[in-house]
Amino acid sequence: MSALSPAVGIIMGSNSDWPTMKAAAKVLEEFGVPFEARVVSAHRTPDLMFEYAATARDRGLRVIIAGAGGAAHLPGMVAAKTTLPVLGVPVQSKALSGQDSLLSIVQMPKGVPVATFAIGEAGAANAGLFAVALLANGDASLADRLADFRARQTQAVLAMTLD
Amino acid sequence: MSALSPAVGIIMGSNSDWPTMKAAAKVLEEFGVPFEARVVSAHRTPDLMFEYAATARDRGLRVIIAGAGGAAHLPGMVAAKTTLPVLGVPVQSKALSGQDSLLSIVQMPKGVPVATFAIGEAGAANAGLFAVALLANGDASLADRLADFRARQTQAVLAMTLD
Amino acid sequence: MSALSPAVGIIMGSNSDWPTMKAAAKVLEEFGVPFEARVVSAHRTPDLMFEYAATARDRGLRVIIAGAGGAAHLPGMVAAKTTLPVLGVPVQSKALSGQDSLLSIVQMPKGVPVATFAIGEAGAANAGLFAVALLANGDASLADRLADFRARQTQAVLAMTLD
Amino acid sequence: MSALSPAVGIIMGSNSDWPTMKAAAKVLEEFGVPFEARVVSAHRTPDLMFEYAATARDRGLRVIIAGAGGAAHLPGMVAAKTTLPVLGVPVQSKALSGQDSLLSIVQMPKGVPVATFAIGEAGAANAGLFAVALLANGDASLADRLADFRARQTQAVLAMTLD
Amino acid sequence: MSALSPAVGIIMGSNSDWPTMKAAAKVLEEFGVPFEARVVSAHRTPDLMFEYAATARDRGLRVIIAGAGGAAHLPGMVAAKTTLPVLGVPVQSKALSGQDSLLSIVQMPKGVPVATFAIGEAGAANAGLFAVALLANGDASLADRLADFRARQTQAVLAMTLD
Amino acid sequence: MSALSPAVGIIMGSNSDWPTMKAAAKVLEEFGVPFEARVVSAHRTPDLMFEYAATARDRGLRVIIAGAGGAAHLPGMVAAKTTLPVLGVPVQSKALSGQDSLLSIVQMPKGVPVATFAIGEAGAANAGLFAVALLANGDASLADRLADFRARQTQAVLAMTLD
Amino acid sequence: MSALSPAVGIIMGSNSDWPTMKAAAKVLEEFGVPFEARVVSAHRTPDLMFEYAATARDRGLRVIIAGAGGAAHLPGMVAAKTTLPVLGVPVQSKALSGQDSLLSIVQMPKGVPVATFAIGEAGAANAGLFAVALLANGDASLADRLADFRARQTQAVLAMTLD
Amino acid sequence: MSALSPAVGIIMGSNSDWPTMKAAAKVLEEFGVPFEARVVSAHRTPDLMFEYAATARDRGLRVIIAGAGGAAHLPGMVAAKTTLPVLGVPVQSKALSGQDSLLSIVQMPKGVPVATFAIGEAGAANAGLFAVALLANGDASLADRLADFRARQTQAVLAMTLD
Repeated sequence: MSALSPAVGIIMGSNSDWPTMKAAAKVLEEFGVPFEARVVSAHRTPDLMFEYAATARDRGLRVIIAGAGGAAHLPGMVAAKTTLPVLGVPVQSKALSGQDSLLSIVQMPKGVPVATFAIGEAGAANAGLFAVALLANGDASLADRLADFRARQTQAVLAMTLD
Repeated sequence: MSALSPAVGIIMGSNSDWPTMKAAAKVLEEFGVPFEARVVSAHRTPDLMFEYAATARDRGLRVIIAGAGGAAHLPGMVAAKTTLPVLGVPVQSKALSGQDSLLSIVQMPKGVPVATFAIGEAGAANAGLFAVALLANGDASLADRLADFRARQTQAVLAMTLD
Repeated sequence: MSALSPAVGIIMGSNSDWPTMKAAAKVLEEFGVPFEARVVSAHRTPDLMFEYAATARDRGLRVIIAGAGGAAHLPGMVAAKTTLPVLGVPVQSKALSGQDSLLSIVQMPKGVPVATFAIGEAGAANAGLFAVALLANGDASLADRLADFRARQTQAVLAMTLD
Repeated sequence: MSALSPAVGIIMGSNSDWPTMKAAAKVLEEFGVPFEARVVSAHRTPDLMFEYAATARDRGLRVIIAGAGGAAHLPGMVAAKTTLPVLGVPVQSKALSGQDSLLSIVQMPKGVPVATFAIGEAGAANAGLFAVALLANGDASLADRLADFRARQTQAVLAMTLD
Repeated sequence: MSALSPAVGIIMGSNSDWPTMKAAAKVLEEFGVPFEARVVSAHRTPDLMFEYAATARDRGLRVIIAGAGGAAHLPGMVAAKTTLPVLGVPVQSKALSGQDSLLSIVQMPKGVPVATFAIGEAGAANAGLFAVALLANGDASLADRLADFRARQTQAVLAMTLD
Repeated sequence: MSALSPAVGIIMGSNSDWPTMKAAAKVLEEFGVPFEARVVSAHRTPDLMFEYAATARDRGLRVIIAGAGGAAHLPGMVAAKTTLPVLGVPVQSKALSGQDSLLSIVQMPKGVPVATFAIGEAGAANAGLFAVALLANGDASLADRLADFRARQTQAVLAMTLD
Repeated sequence: MSALSPAVGIIMGSNSDWPTMKAAAKVLEEFGVPFEARVVSAHRTPDLMFEYAATARDRGLRVIIAGAGGAAHLPGMVAAKTTLPVLGVPVQSKALSGQDSLLSIVQMPKGVPVATFAIGEAGAANAGLFAVALLANGDASLADRLADFRARQTQAVLAMTLD
Repeated sequence: MSALSPAVGIIMGSNSDWPTMKAAAKVLEEFGVPFEARVVSAHRTPDLMFEYAATARDRGLRVIIAGAGGAAHLPGMVAAKTTLPVLGVPVQSKALSGQDSLLSIVQMPKGVPVATFAIGEAGAANAGLFAVALLANGDASLADRLADFRARQTQAVLAMTLD
């Protein structure tokens, strides 16, 4: 969390999604982007979901990251109630390993987009990085930090050795 | 449609789903079950969807049949806003032939069920028949008509010949 | 089990399906819906299956929940021998994680519907909840309890915190 | 069909499966194996199906070829009611191209086998050839004809040219 | 195309992808967002691709929409060479209907995100809408037009009738 | 193994397939059907495979059970070199859980059939049972034992209880 | 075909695969690489297949391109009988669109490799190009022509316009 | 590694791929083929990747083996920047077990081939063996060693026993 007014809202259908979604939170923390994180369930708290989405822009959010598994309606329904950019993270499900989550999130009909990332923790981290990239469009300092992150990431790979 | 107060609501995300969903309507007509049919889109008319679901019981509906393709959030989101039985029909999608529709509808999380049927027209017809079976639990005449339908169906198969 | 005449029959192809299917039984117990649970195998006890299905209505059952894995013929064959509503639960299989179970249950041909739920324990619990919703159509008290359950479920999500 | 008492029974869930299943009939005709072919539906004529399977051995059948699409319960349920060898042919389905048919037929539980062949017409023809191979175990003349068929098949491939 | 300096770059691996990708262009035109569209192939013009991506920010682009089918490396490789937001559109492929395109685009490793949309034309249109949403974060007029678009879209659905 | 001349040959591509395939051997032992079991690899011992298949009939084999995983060419290639009935068992593979094994075995072209069973141990046991059914066509005593097996299997299910 | 002793052998299971495989032939013709093309069926001409593979090296072949659909055993079995490099092309199959062909070819066990290419005509063309690349390792002129081909291919993409 | 100038370059996207890819290295060591192995990431070190590929031929490499998981762009992008033969190994991914890796690598468009092998360690070992086969075309001694390897492999299978 952050003392500043959050620019990014991270939501998920259950606290059992938090081990996956905290990878997005961690990225935002590293970049100093203020965010909030909370449980909002499409199926069990539909009214909260609609209110969350409908008021997000006025509360100052610039982007919403929504993680969900299985039927995974949260990202798409939030997108239906806001014109803010919505990023969807397919959480790995038990029986189908997130194939259901992925298709439920990415196959949105024409008119209401959800930007979808990889299944699981890598996708959550990348949703965080994409939120940074999106905000960096209007924040040169953040753009610099993102370029630095990439450069460090490149260096880390260059330093890898094989035993 | 029907002059009587509808017992079944058939909804779908777009009028392009009607060629599939009218198979459900046709079954209800054959059984004389009053119903209504209309377009309600989860992503493009979310407020209408919530209102439709939230008022369905008070309007006298006993069951809702919802058809959708692709991300297919309509059945699950309606189920989130009513305790009426919700029947979901996966409409065959273009790229993935309804595999996305099926998983998005059937893989609902614990707590909010959607009764799911086969992809496409057969599934729509079967949702209609299941609605009849459900209503027949409190309507002996309807139960008799359902038994008759099954008997006629058996006879039709018995009469099939191979050229 | 219940002292009252059972309204719901829970059947499964093997006692190895019970860890999954008891989630349906638990829901019915919580709602005070009388039910019975037993092993009925489509392939190993076909005559029992037909007798079970054919006599279900006269024995007072209002709905049948059938769980099966792999080829998973039980729900569909029971549905072929009764006009009662049949709910199918795909049990997670070893090699294919329930993808075979799901398709075998949901892809029923036009004329004999099976209402299908999610793979595994969540699907079994939701089949139980759907049976409650179905019975609540003619039982205002049960409808109230279902509404209460949903309200409590919403509260539980609202109370979730992220560490 | 054949004037002799049929050794092979070809059954299918609907006459719409006949364009696929006649490939099996054609093979049996070529080999002079007497057979019968008829519509027997697992879901729409369950009693006929059980009677067909239960009396097959006494009627002189040595093997049953059953074709079905979608949920495709026919081969497995026939196998549950006879100890004759049952050959299953997955008919190509509309939405899922026979992937549902294949899994529903092949993934039988331990104890009740169904010998499964390829999706569609090739599978039907091969079920016919397999029935011939099975009967050839006790019929040297038929074994010779099968060997001849294979030799001619080899010659036909050797004679193929590329334009 | 547009006389103004383009804010969005639409690229694709071949001109055979243009029938799909022009849905993105059409959206941007409707919103008056200046864009450019051109063929850039990851595998056949790798140097152009790298140069395009590496110079995009300095040329004034704020977001890149990349469409590709099959192995579909274009979106991910462009993302590897820029910190601008990259939106990926899986073009429907011949044999696998875009399942290959989808997985190749969405399953990016941690560190280099690609925001992925639905397979085919709906995905291309939604990538266009998402680009608008992204730019609208710093452009109140564009945000208003996006809200208007959504309202008109809702009205269009509300006006749909079923024959 | 058996002192009698074997009627069934069980072959597999590697001794790592034996934990799966011994389920077939166990069934044959229970029914007193003489069999042999050995490693024959399509890819690593192709000449042995061809010789095994080509001489099988003359050595007195009546049916061959072949298990293989992954590309799983063994059953189909054995079938190409003999007119004996060949039963294929898809061994569960590491990455793809036997989906590759299943398709490689079952999707044989018209002209050379392989009777395919379920993935893994259940499929191996069922291949054994099918071999018994096939041999029982010419052995009334074996047919009786198969009927007894089925009756005992039914009793075992009827005796199952749920805790 | 070519007057020179062929360096590449193109084989396929049926002349119905030729519309796909001629894309490989066309590439070799363009590069002036002598080749032969013929029908060799794994299942219908197994002895020819073994002889073809076993004698390929002595006949002067340097690489074999094998195309097959469905169970698609040809590439793997040829690889089992030669140490020459074998390139496999999955031909698009009817029911499963080449997913079966792909897995049957690529999932070879450790010890006998098949180099696999994309499903269908693109894969056949690429197998031809790979054969050229392989031969170019010992033929500087061919390497130059391959580099020229690539340069022309790049130019063709650079010249593409969008209407 | 090797004191001689390497003929084969083994590259992979991360050192976490090394447990898989060292199976390729081990094969090359056994055959005495000089090679190098290093981490080159398509997404995190794109410039290194292009330089590696563009200079590979001049540095004396004859073939490149590239392993990658998930979006798995490394093999295809290396192939885009060199005319050397490129062998791709799909590393088994977490959520999708390498199905994403396989499709991303094998479904290359016409014009830029990647020779693809099985998912995981078996594929890596086979890529090593294929590199040997490829180099053996111009090295009679290596061809002999490959024939010896195959013969020993055959003997090892012939010596397998079943407990």
